[in-house]
Amino acid sequence: MKLPSAATGLFLGTAAATPLSLRSSTLNYNMAPPNLSTLPNNSLYETWRPRAHVLPPNGQIGDPCMHYTDPATGVFHVGWLHDSAGIAGATTSDLATYTDLNPNGGQAIVPGGINDPVGVFDGSVIPSGINGLPTLLYTSVSYLPIHWSIPYTRGSETQSLAVTTDSGRNFTKLDQGPVIPGPPFAANVTAFRDPYVFQNTQLDTLTSSQSNTWYTVISGGIHNQGPTQFLYRQYDPDFQYWEYLGQWWSEPTNSTWGDGTWAGRWGFNFETGNVFSLNEEGYTADGEIFGTLGTEGSDLPIVKQLTSIHDQLWVAGSVAKNTNGSVEFTPSMAGFLDWGFSSYAASGKVLPATSKPSTQSGAPDRYISYVWLTGDQYGQAEGFPTNQQNWTGALLLPRELKVQSLDVVDNALSREEGASWRVESNNTDAGTVELRTLGISIARETEAKLLSGKPSVEAGRTVSSAGVLPFQHSPESKFFVLKTNISFPASARQSGLQTGFQILASESEHTSIYYQFANESVVIDRSNTSAAAQTTSGIDSFTESGKLRLFDVLDGGEESVETLDLTIVVDNSILEVYANGRFALSTWVRSWYANSTEIRFLHNGVGQATFSNVTVSEGLYNAWPERA
Amino acid sequence: MKLPSAATGLFLGTAAATPLSLRSSTLNYNMAPPNLSTLPNNSLYETWRPRAHVLPPNGQIGDPCMHYTDPATGVFHVGWLHDSAGIAGATTSDLATYTDLNPNGGQAIVPGGINDPVGVFDGSVIPSGINGLPTLLYTSVSYLPIHWSIPYTRGSETQSLAVTTDSGRNFTKLDQGPVIPGPPFAANVTAFRDPYVFQNTQLDTLTSSQSNTWYTVISGGIHNQGPTQFLYRQYDPDFQYWEYLGQWWSEPTNSTWGDGTWAGRWGFNFETGNVFSLNEEGYTADGEIFGTLGTEGSDLPIVKQLTSIHDQLWVAGSVAKNTNGSVEFTPSMAGFLDWGFSSYAASGKVLPATSKPSTQSGAPDRYISYVWLTGDQYGQAEGFPTNQQNWTGALLLPRELKVQSLDVVDNALSREEGASWRVESNNTDAGTVELRTLGISIARETEAKLLSGKPSVEAGRTVSSAGVLPFQHSPESKFFVLKTNISFPASARQSGLQTGFQILASESEHTSIYYQFANESVVIDRSNTSAAAQTTSGIDSFTESGKLRLFDVLDGGEESVETLDLTIVVDNSILEVYANGRFALSTWVRSWYANSTEIRFLHNGVGQATFSNVTVSEGLYNAWPERA
Repeated sequence: MKLPSAATGLFLGTAAATPLSLRSSTLNYNMAPPNLSTLPNNSLYETWRPRAHVLPPNGQIGDPCMHYTDPATGVFHVGWLHDSAGIAGATTSDLATYTDLNPNGGQAIVPGGINDPVGVFDGSVIPSGINGLPTLLYTSVSYLPIHWSIPYTRGSETQSLAVTTDSGRNFTKLDQGPVIPGPPFAANVTAFRDPYVFQNTQLDTLTSSQSNTWYTVISGGIHNQGPTQFLYRQYDPDFQYWEYLGQWWSEPTNSTWGDGTWAGRWGFNFETGNVFSLNEEGYTADGEIFGTLGTEGSDLPIVKQLTSIHDQLWVAGSVAKNTNGSVEFTPSMAGFLDWGFSSYAASGKVLPATSKPSTQSGAPDRYISYVWLTGDQYGQAEGFPTNQQNWTGALLLPRELKVQSLDVVDNALSREEGASWRVESNNTDAGTVELRTLGISIARETEAKLLSGKPSVEAGRTVSSAGVLPFQHSPESKFFVLKTNISFPASARQSGLQTGFQILASESEHTSIYYQFANESVVIDRSNTSAAAQTTSGIDSFTESGKLRLFDVLDGGEESVETLDLTIVVDNSILEVYANGRFALSTWVRSWYANSTEIRFLHNGVGQATFSNVTVSEGLYNAWPERA
Repeated sequence: MKLPSAATGLFLGTAAATPLSLRSSTLNYNMAPPNLSTLPNNSLYETWRPRAHVLPPNGQIGDPCMHYTDPATGVFHVGWLHDSAGIAGATTSDLATYTDLNPNGGQAIVPGGINDPVGVFDGSVIPSGINGLPTLLYTSVSYLPIHWSIPYTRGSETQSLAVTTDSGRNFTKLDQGPVIPGPPFAANVTAFRDPYVFQNTQLDTLTSSQSNTWYTVISGGIHNQGPTQFLYRQYDPDFQYWEYLGQWWSEPTNSTWGDGTWAGRWGFNFETGNVFSLNEEGYTADGEIFGTLGTEGSDLPIVKQLTSIHDQLWVAGSVAKNTNGSVEFTPSMAGFLDWGFSSYAASGKVLPATSKPSTQSGAPDRYISYVWLTGDQYGQAEGFPTNQQNWTGALLLPRELKVQSLDVVDNALSREEGASWRVESNNTDAGTVELRTLGISIARETEAKLLSGKPSVEAGRTVSSAGVLPFQHSPESKFFVLKTNISFPASARQSGLQTGFQILASESEHTSIYYQFANESVVIDRSNTSAAAQTTSGIDSFTESGKLRLFDVLDGGEESVETLDLTIVVDNSILEVYANGRFALSTWVRSWYANSTEIRFLHNGVGQATFSNVTVSEGLYNAWPERA
């Protein structure tokens, strides 16, 4: 290709003649970048590529799905939509390193059959399905476009089966029509996709089903009514028929949980609904029912075929029969599984204690969820150097979900309604309440491996003046985990305090991560994250944030503000911020300069905060040791 | 192609070099035929081609379907499956002559879309459907093979819509999925096809539906239960949804109506079910409910994927709600719409008095049915010269169906149960009963046109000695209508009498048509019909027959045997025998010799019979004046 003048002098040597081998090593990260979308294809491949995350060798990753533990091997399979042309996947025995199922990360199932001439959307796996083999129930797509903002073309989405006989490398479609050939009769749906299979003791009892019956929820909505989940039940041993049990959960169009503060919007349409049941250890079939889901919302006015808001939520609730005798799910709390703008379409799966990862780590039955981090703002990042990078998006680190219990002071902060927690019980004598919420943390094996890098301990300190203070030992690379605790005096609550870090910092770039009490938020200010954002329209720089309430807790009889417990993972361009075992906020931080690796304490001079247990583990591991 | 030696000398001239123009005129019909399947393609095109029947210019005709009166023009449309690749059609303004809708009889709809990748099966038309346009509800086929004797591949047959905007030349499929995406939940069907749309006042009332609601029956069966019709109701003005009302009519596997004498077997699977309502004039929406249907039966042992018995039946009955609140159809009588081995898959349609044919003839609202006459025994006629003839099969002449009433003597003959008639009322004083049955006759316009040929009257006579007696004026061609009345003394009933005609007769060939009281049958003995049957395995020669009861009637107070009223149509190779306004038997009579045109009185010497009103109308008309 003919290089535009802006790129002149940027390249060293003659690599431009061999674009496939032209990797970022030939780019100069010590000078300002050109408009990156003018560079040769593949030239940015290494620039922002993460090391410890799940993503295909190249191309676009979409929704995670099709995860399962192979009963024959105990190995965990992770899948994802790939290049809008089916589902690819990999296996892992340790939740840290992965092996592609197919050469070059090729798909295990592709569209083009009779049931799915134009698309294969998300599916989920019954590990011991037809003939005891892993069996995929997926959305077979016949007509496009599909979007909640336009009339639904009947028959666009049906649910079909495919089975693997080669340990997941290929899922062979049954030579027959869909097993769920359409939405319920005359339902004017906004979508009807992403079947998620699960087992649940409470549903078995409520619906008088055999033990270990499989259920599936299908995500979507009804035009002019709102988003919904359609519930079905396995009808026969061959999974040929799925009995419709009703819209077990519906919300009014574009309504919110509470006032929307803690769980965004239910939006116009549900996607990628997962249903599972948890206790404080992890997964249990008779635990409290939780779900994760993507909600499609929109700013006003609605632009057809454009969802401007994608919220990745979780929900917990109870099931009961309604007056019609149908099963109904009623939320008791809801929140964000990840607050990031680009975080969406989470898909998880039960990981049994008998699985290979768990037998090695000694973990109990767990529920492991992978969240998608879109690399190009859901395709809306105009000017993003897609061809130059030659890969788009990634999955966030696997997360263990469980019930989190908190003993906190019984006050207005803990008693708020419509929040992402609920009061389980109260201790009048102590003046405390026990709260329940969803526990979200990096899977234990993954985190252990992340922390196995070169450790360095930074001295704790109390900050009170405005400014930044560089670490004594900043990382030399853009691959590290930063952990810390930050404690605040009670006076911080009503103040304008902002405390945290700058990371990926140099004289030219930095990303600020801080907590502020003003709106109880963890904020990631990316306005100076990347020099490339100045030259390339597709590199976003808007501020990300998520709400985290630090409750009042009793510490030796004294009330104090709950300590902020941060785990910050930087995997080159992917930033994941975890807090207090119940908060996650992830985004892209595409720093350009090679020397943008500094970490700095950050404080805005309002009040004070104390950092402790500040450690950095540098290096991370290579999640794909078998890739060339 | 290389001609086998058997054909040596058969051809005159050099026509073999130009096979498309090589028509039967080059064959010698004055000498014995060779094995016809050794002849050049197209060489038998004219040999047996009918003149007054509906069939495509060339190729295979399958089930008739997709008939309707275009509300915009009043013209009647007749359709048929063509070459197993969709539905073709023609229009008629007089039920006699037809105009192809497309050049060379091409299809108006072909398979290959998303809903019908492998096949388009029978459909029926709502004349004022979507946007007031003729709208086709048809079976869209995704998987083959389909047969009641093998497991059913789910999703093989769905029902989809197509609309014509160009007066029926093309039916454009809706760009969406099927409107009936599958059989009822978990029904293990043997088939699910041939949707037939109709309106019915009784159903409107029974199901509390709006007036003029459209219904559809879908034909099929349930494995190990039996044949059935699935009933659906229009749900919305756009015909998008069809509400399932249940299996309104089911019969046990391979059971019969009565002992099977009068209506054959219900078989293993229903096909091409039509539903309509009649009175003694013709069609009326609030009349008695009738149906026509094809039943797939089998000799034992069952050969997989082979239906050895195809019965073309009719049925009448009543509808009521059963204890479950579902509509149920209960037969009150059933019979054969045509008794011929090759007669099947009838499809009819309401022809309103306002239609062009009816306004010209002054006919009231009628129900017009076309029966398929397979040309190769449902594809089982091995050795049939398919390529040599270059067309296969035809539709039988259009038939008017109505309620027929008969006043007959009240005796065992009229009181038989499980028959093709029922006792409507009885007159104790007169000793008579009024019977009801299905009236079957050639459509009035068609018959009038058939009889417009050169007439000749043959003198009536009473026959009593064994032998044949040639007509004074036999036809010179193989295109004619023979009408007659034959009366019998009461003594004929218990006798071995056989009386009728030989037609298409010469010293080498003849076809015998006679009535015999022994089993109350009209018999067509084809054992000497064709010299070609001696040389060509695919030319069948088995005897055809159908049961017709001649009741006892009161004639001036005296009991006598009902007169046999015969109309025999010979259109070259197609023979249709109609009797007494309630009987039809059609078959192929493929005489070879040019001089096989004689008609002879036939009697076997047992008792006597009297022929009267014997007329022959020779010539027939050309039903396709616009074809080259």
